[in-house]
Amino acid sequence: MRVPFIKMHGLGNDFVMLDARAEPLPPISHSVAAALADRQTGIGCDQVILLQPSDIADFAMRIFNADGGEVEACGNASRAVALLHGTKAEVETSGGIITIEPVGHGARIDMGVPKFEWDSIPLAYAMDTLDMPVAWEWLVQPASVNVGNPHVVFFVEDCDTVPLDRLGPLIETDPLFPAGINVNVATVESTESIRLRVWERGAGLTRACGTGACATAIAAMRRGLVGRETRITLPGGMLTIEWNDAGRIIMTGPASESFRGSFDWGDYA
Amino acid sequence: MRVPFIKMHGLGNDFVMLDARAEPLPPISHSVAAALADRQTGIGCDQVILLQPSDIADFAMRIFNADGGEVEACGNASRAVALLHGTKAEVETSGGIITIEPVGHGARIDMGVPKFEWDSIPLAYAMDTLDMPVAWEWLVQPASVNVGNPHVVFFVEDCDTVPLDRLGPLIETDPLFPAGINVNVATVESTESIRLRVWERGAGLTRACGTGACATAIAAMRRGLVGRETRITLPGGMLTIEWNDAGRIIMTGPASESFRGSFDWGDYA
Repeated sequence: MRVPFIKMHGLGNDFVMLDARAEPLPPISHSVAAALADRQTGIGCDQVILLQPSDIADFAMRIFNADGGEVEACGNASRAVALLHGTKAEVETSGGIITIEPVGHGARIDMGVPKFEWDSIPLAYAMDTLDMPVAWEWLVQPASVNVGNPHVVFFVEDCDTVPLDRLGPLIETDPLFPAGINVNVATVESTESIRLRVWERGAGLTRACGTGACATAIAAMRRGLVGRETRITLPGGMLTIEWNDAGRIIMTGPASESFRGSFDWGDYA
Repeated sequence: MRVPFIKMHGLGNDFVMLDARAEPLPPISHSVAAALADRQTGIGCDQVILLQPSDIADFAMRIFNADGGEVEACGNASRAVALLHGTKAEVETSGGIITIEPVGHGARIDMGVPKFEWDSIPLAYAMDTLDMPVAWEWLVQPASVNVGNPHVVFFVEDCDTVPLDRLGPLIETDPLFPAGINVNVATVESTESIRLRVWERGAGLTRACGTGACATAIAAMRRGLVGRETRITLPGGMLTIEWNDAGRIIMTGPASESFRGSFDWGDYA
């Protein structure tokens, strides 16, 4: 069976998009997702994105990491899906329903309402999630936010000097975070500008993490460090995050298509 | 302009194949090759392979590394080209004319005649290339062979324990090798079996290097360590190398197609 796909990226975070909305595909096992994501012998990507029919939204998106595991939310992939779909739509994800809308060379995404309760992050036990009394070496007193997936955010003098490749895996797997955690180190540069680097759960250091940008902006807004709209500059480029009057997170940023192709399902199943 | 391509690999060494034999393509600058090879924002590959018309062979192949630089020869790419072409053919490369022939799930390639003269490797000054009086830490007395591109081969007790990521770049850029060098560390397991790891000039550690397998086999044959036909096992899989009565190197091994697609030239130029 010959299967068409589109390869896209958002700020260098790259995706193989499979569209099973009109015609179904065989189930995507962990091993199929991992084989497709292999950068030498497969198509190569950070995540495989599967679009499916939905009973509660216009369609559903499922997200498989390069290790084959399924995750709840991906901000960069949401912008790529918007560009691919071409019109405003509601999309079911396992992190909740999001609204996508293509704008210019990218998209505007309603990422929904952030959660701050300790058990919805989730943390292993109750504590203040805005000013957590915990530390890993000199990374201290972070905030935690769930924006469809769990994030911890450290505000530091200069995020470029943090050895995230060493501390990221340590924090990601800390028992304090029973579902694991995405680790954000952020430097506030003005009341409307933040620099950010992210260690992604299951993916490691990436050029850009859309949900990390959302979580970091919300944490900074709650602490009064920035206004209700801020730019977030990641190694891969820039996003704009707004926390609107309805309490919803609006992310705006670029996405683009790299190429289109097709593969033989039997080579990967 | 929409440009079709085929993505292939040989033992995990992967290629974007562009076919300009029937219809010409715009010139492939270093920056176009590098953009296509980018694994996040391009198609992603170790090398971009361009097939062109030739005046002296059936067609010509040109090889661009992921850094945009052009190289003379690539054994793994030659097998992929054979599979793509589908029939026996003579192919012009900047390392000489090679003969390719698809067999089973791979190909049999006549890689031509190896060169051993010090100035055809090239080395910076005259010395015995079979038993070179040089050393880098405990890597001593290598052999050098040019099989379309330059190789140095060290025979060691256990090639898996050599820190090639540290010593490879050191040797590659040593002034002894004015054109740079591919660094092979090999362990002879029997008179017909060699284990091999390769640090590739301009590409670093790879899963498999076809010309490295040829150079290593020839060096081992010249030293009497193996017979005139030997298996070479690389991290990515196995090749068979024969040094025939005509003095030519015959490499046999697998290649496969990963997927097909097309991209917009304007996105990469």
